Amino acid sequence: MGWHQRTIRLAPRARGFHLVTDDIVRAWPEVARCRVGIAHLFLQHTSASLSLGENADPEVRRDLERWFTHAVPDGFAAFRHVTEGGDDMPAHVKSTIIGASLSIPVRDGSLALGTWQGIYLCEHRDEGGARTIVATLQGE
Amino acid sequence: MGWHQRTIRLAPRARGFHLVTDDIVRAWPEVARCRVGIAHLFLQHTSASLSLGENADPEVRRDLERWFTHAVPDGFAAFRHVTEGGDDMPAHVKSTIIGASLSIPVRDGSLALGTWQGIYLCEHRDEGGARTIVATLQGE
Amino acid sequence: MGWHQRTIRLAPRARGFHLVTDDIVRAWPEVARCRVGIAHLFLQHTSASLSLGENADPEVRRDLERWFTHAVPDGFAAFRHVTEGGDDMPAHVKSTIIGASLSIPVRDGSLALGTWQGIYLCEHRDEGGARTIVATLQGE
Repeated sequence: MGWHQRTIRLAPRARGFHLVTDDIVRAWPEVARCRVGIAHLFLQHTSASLSLGENADPEVRRDLERWFTHAVPDGFAAFRHVTEGGDDMPAHVKSTIIGASLSIPVRDGSLALGTWQGIYLCEHRDEGGARTIVATLQGE
Repeated sequence: MGWHQRTIRLAPRARGFHLVTDDIVRAWPEVARCRVGIAHLFLQHTSASLSLGENADPEVRRDLERWFTHAVPDGFAAFRHVTEGGDDMPAHVKSTIIGASLSIPVRDGSLALGTWQGIYLCEHRDEGGARTIVATLQGE
Repeated sequence: MGWHQRTIRLAPRARGFHLVTDDIVRAWPEVARCRVGIAHLFLQHTSASLSLGENADPEVRRDLERWFTHAVPDGFAAFRHVTEGGDDMPAHVKSTIIGASLSIPVRDGSLALGTWQGIYLCEHRDEGGARTIVATLQGE
């Protein structure tokens, strides 16, 4: 099948960790036509992240938000980049820690996620707005 | 050589950071037949991670365990997802920080790691059990 | 265009987070001939990292250094791997957190970065010296 690239837009979400596997799969029908390959997701932002996480208990996502905001508190006193709000520089730090892209193997037309793995959009801003992903698929 | 995909199973390991470069290379003979490409390792779990780290002094791996468990302590008071044990939610956080996959360039039949780089399995559970990796190789 | 691989050497930089998008683009003319693909950057070191970050205000990079050195202080008392200096083991931890590689989609001859995204070299040593990247491009 060679290369396929598209843009996926995710609707605005509240600050926190969100399971978006279904949104991604629905928006990316080409994955179903790929026998073996790599599905690459690239978030074009520096105040949100993409990660893989537990897909069952929503409390896990809330605990992740609790820990990350404990580790990188809003209004951290040492920060000087403060004009965009107390949640902005912490969002850049969290994005640096977690990262903005994922590479997921494709096998027999599906993302080869583990039983308990899901794709998370990690929204680090209070009002992050819609988020844009460049989705690149290559395979055969 | 096009695409090649296989499953690599890693035997159970104690909690901590483990150098597994040799296990990976031994289980993946196709890499030796690849002149240039990308070797992708994808761990199908949310309580362990894959990373690249110093391959010489075992104390580095123990220090990594010391720092990560200091930063994300077992039984962290704010966590609510606690029914699977005090090491479970910290494992999910560490996995979110470190990540579950690696992309390593292949050059002349070998992983193009730096002199001091090795592949780590980061086991965040006390009893994590065997771990499964989807290994995808593409190149020519 | 198939596969293209080259080595990119970055000149020594002071400890901290550095915007190197232009250095990378200048050293990698093949990207301009790629319509769609993936550009992969792999740093062959365990005491520095690559990340994506805000490309406008230099204070963001200084705040990242402030937070990471707060979270992983030089001379952290629990570390035993100390013979290479008080900044060495913290550098390994920061490299484990941030990661040594980036996969960036290519679209119409350019890296498909978001408006505010740039490529950072994160230098975690006081005297890290020159850094080597294996740059692998595949596309059509």
